[in-house]
Amino acid sequence: MTDDPERVFEMRPIGFVRSPYAERSQIPKGPGAEHRAEGTLELRLELEPGLQDIEGFSHLFVLWVFDRAEGFDLVARVPLDQEVPHGVFASRSPRRPNPIGLTVVELLGRSGARLQVRGLDMLDGTPILDVKPYLSGVAPEALRRGWVAEAEERRRLK
Amino acid sequence: MTDDPERVFEMRPIGFVRSPYAERSQIPKGPGAEHRAEGTLELRLELEPGLQDIEGFSHLFVLWVFDRAEGFDLVARVPLDQEVPHGVFASRSPRRPNPIGLTVVELLGRSGARLQVRGLDMLDGTPILDVKPYLSGVAPEALRRGWVAEAEERRRLK
Repeated sequence: MTDDPERVFEMRPIGFVRSPYAERSQIPKGPGAEHRAEGTLELRLELEPGLQDIEGFSHLFVLWVFDRAEGFDLVARVPLDQEVPHGVFASRSPRRPNPIGLTVVELLGRSGARLQVRGLDMLDGTPILDVKPYLSGVAPEALRRGWVAEAEERRRLK
Repeated sequence: MTDDPERVFEMRPIGFVRSPYAERSQIPKGPGAEHRAEGTLELRLELEPGLQDIEGFSHLFVLWVFDRAEGFDLVARVPLDQEVPHGVFASRSPRRPNPIGLTVVELLGRSGARLQVRGLDMLDGTPILDVKPYLSGVAPEALRRGWVAEAEERRRLK
């Protein structure tokens, strides 16, 4: 039952992202990329009751599918660091064994089964798997950012 | 292709959690629950190259499957608030349309395909879907915690 590495879990979209990005090239990437894009998380109408009381949260986790990525690389160069390849689990690369994306968005409002949000970095039409409230974060002074901090420092010194 | 709500995405475990929790009742839940449990994320041996450079990060996101939950509730009472029911997407309930869990853990060390971590809240044997570096959080002063803050305040006033 558990510990069966061949076990398959089937996930279905709870809704879709409406974002200003029709093409991957439009999404800000790499050093200093800021995600301020606004758009909508459109949930399936029958799931609307599941959004009860969500308006009280300022930020949400959105779990979604890189549905236009194919295959994966265990080690690859990514936009944040073009020089040194890194492991896929140490990066945000879309080419992952399970192509799940994770984005923190700011919740601007709700209308029925639609959530108006800021901070999207997904393509328009991206399938959403889950939405969760953001309750707390890691204190900045406790955080180490590994190769991302090193790549930033390398660029700063150039 | 996109926007097909019947589309199914198949996810497979990249590994399994080794945690001290054999039973759900052992996992701290509800108000003031702290997750300090230590354990291991055991990835499949062939995925070890995907962990390259992960040691530099202090914290990781772990995406995993509530593999012992069945079905979902759109609205339910949860341990954090026994009085008022809330929508599933405004809560961390395991009974979700897609039973994916999200936990932030502290990375203590790595040995091959095993990550030693602190902050587990999953059962032993839980399937892992993805591991991602934690790069930044929402500033505490920008965060609103909705019904969770209200439930805490209600308990404080009792």
